[in-house]
Amino acid sequence: MRWNNLTGIVTPVEHQPERQFSPAVSNLFLDALSGQTGPRPPFWFMRQAGRYLPEYREIRAQADGFLDLCYTPERAARVTLQPIDRFRPDAAILFSDILVIPDAMGQEVGFSEGFGPVLTPVTSQADLERLDPARTLDHLAPVFETVRLVRAELPDDVALLGFAGAPWTVATYMIEGGSSRDFNQVKGWVISEPSAAAAMLGMLVEATTEYLVAQVEAGAQALQLFDTWASAVPASSFETLVISPTRQIVDGVKARTPDVPIIGFARGIGPRLADYVRETGIDAVGLDSAITFDQARELQDICPVQGNLDPAYLLAGGPPMEAAANQVLDQLADGPFVFNLAHGIHKDTPFAHVEALAEQIRDRGAGA
Amino acid sequence: MRWNNLTGIVTPVEHQPERQFSPAVSNLFLDALSGQTGPRPPFWFMRQAGRYLPEYREIRAQADGFLDLCYTPERAARVTLQPIDRFRPDAAILFSDILVIPDAMGQEVGFSEGFGPVLTPVTSQADLERLDPARTLDHLAPVFETVRLVRAELPDDVALLGFAGAPWTVATYMIEGGSSRDFNQVKGWVISEPSAAAAMLGMLVEATTEYLVAQVEAGAQALQLFDTWASAVPASSFETLVISPTRQIVDGVKARTPDVPIIGFARGIGPRLADYVRETGIDAVGLDSAITFDQARELQDICPVQGNLDPAYLLAGGPPMEAAANQVLDQLADGPFVFNLAHGIHKDTPFAHVEALAEQIRDRGAGA
Repeated sequence: MRWNNLTGIVTPVEHQPERQFSPAVSNLFLDALSGQTGPRPPFWFMRQAGRYLPEYREIRAQADGFLDLCYTPERAARVTLQPIDRFRPDAAILFSDILVIPDAMGQEVGFSEGFGPVLTPVTSQADLERLDPARTLDHLAPVFETVRLVRAELPDDVALLGFAGAPWTVATYMIEGGSSRDFNQVKGWVISEPSAAAAMLGMLVEATTEYLVAQVEAGAQALQLFDTWASAVPASSFETLVISPTRQIVDGVKARTPDVPIIGFARGIGPRLADYVRETGIDAVGLDSAITFDQARELQDICPVQGNLDPAYLLAGGPPMEAAANQVLDQLADGPFVFNLAHGIHKDTPFAHVEALAEQIRDRGAGA
Repeated sequence: MRWNNLTGIVTPVEHQPERQFSPAVSNLFLDALSGQTGPRPPFWFMRQAGRYLPEYREIRAQADGFLDLCYTPERAARVTLQPIDRFRPDAAILFSDILVIPDAMGQEVGFSEGFGPVLTPVTSQADLERLDPARTLDHLAPVFETVRLVRAELPDDVALLGFAGAPWTVATYMIEGGSSRDFNQVKGWVISEPSAAAAMLGMLVEATTEYLVAQVEAGAQALQLFDTWASAVPASSFETLVISPTRQIVDGVKARTPDVPIIGFARGIGPRLADYVRETGIDAVGLDSAITFDQARELQDICPVQGNLDPAYLLAGGPPMEAAANQVLDQLADGPFVFNLAHGIHKDTPFAHVEALAEQIRDRGAGA
């Protein structure tokens, strides 16, 4: 369901800058992102609001499609807060999707249950010219309202994390028309139509920068950029497709909200992570599970790291999960560190496993 | 279609050791794998026999499913030879699939057009116990017959490359029941059921070793192990899931056919490639497109490398493809090197692009 079908359900709020939320209470997550090491490592879990939670499935069933859920502030706010009530992580992540940006720019975006996102792919210059990044703020007004609602209800010691997809990753969906395994269409397009590709990445930089700044103005206290498919970028295009657009967004956001830390999460880029950190200007870096602890500690010399328990351990639970989580904590919690997963919680994960993991991390502080 | 439905179509051939094919004519591909640098770099292309070729689609349409094509020696041999007739690469790769191994062991394996492989997933100890690696040679007799037919028809200066999937990658399909994006099921299973996982990897090592040795005995002159989903393995499990099974296969094959070079192609493992080469005993290494030229040249100090033009360039064609291919050649052809793609040819690739690339590489020799 598209945003313009939703005016009967949500009350769009005029976009206007607001004061940044400044909690008096210290927040372990924000402290870690500023390079501090607190009494225990902070934690949150990617996709902590999601299908593995029965209370999520209940609200999801009431919504008229996935985007409807993202664009209905009361529901999106409730979903954002559900894992906070259950597990009390140190950060709530806004419930939304990286594909709200192409939706806002005018591309047809849908989600089919069990199959993932389906977009009418951009296949021509005319398709490209129909996209308009200037529509972002109006179209995504419900998301900013969600941010306000969440921040108003969130305990002071829980930070609110906004996010967006990095341009390359969002572009893969826009050109491929959905998920891809080999990314040949989008990569072929970048090669054959470099100026169109540059134009689209430029639009995405513009829209994403506006979107993130508006999230901060509505109450987000930190931001994460997801570059999930950075792994697919050939070495020779890494600067153009990953580094440069990310740096432009970081520069643009920091020019307007300099104090809000930005976490970069470029998955599967292995040895290029240190360059990614240095060249984009991000404040902290998310780690996937292929990153060794040696590499992670080297990165900690440059910036705080976030990660990297493989979500397969959370799916499995029990002593193997406990041992693997302890290993992550033992190896990384002495430096600036946010405990997280290496990617999102799998939908079949028993929430008791998530509860146990949250308790384990909190106990770490009690024992320290 | 399963192997046991095929007895009316193919004539299974008794498995028996045969003399190894020893061409009098020198082969640039085999020379490169032995560390030599010849008058021009040899080349072949992953998935060079495939849907992008009209003559492939014609034979594919006559077959009763994808496995039927793999198991009908006359057809599989024709398909293997099609790209040789068109582009005259320096190696033919046997037309088969990595999933013939679970099929041979007794798992239900099917292929649905446009969706990929569909397997009845292994979900219990009972499922596991029904698998029998000892059936491999009988079940895959048609594949060995294909190898014989191809070797008999192949020009002497074109090498015949056999292949198999590495155990981890094959296991992902066996447990997930098909392609996966996050591999949580198989990774969760490895964590929760380590002894079952070890048993299955052991079966795969046994079946794959037999399968590869039999390919050599039928006429294959080199082998490639595809570990396509090595990228998904957490750092902490890399030894168990990738290195160890690969080393066992390499050891097992070399114990019986010591002179046949083995190319390891573990995709997306970035900084772990050098360890992968050293610890598995493979003779040459395939490179994906995320590998930088600096890293590739460092690897060339250890062993011959094969790669790594992104197939997106082949899809795009024209001057960008030519420039990118020249860059690969300029950077890597001074050392032991086989020109190839970073992964398989995309089905929408115009074959004229492949023709142009083959000509460009051959001209490299003429100009040198």
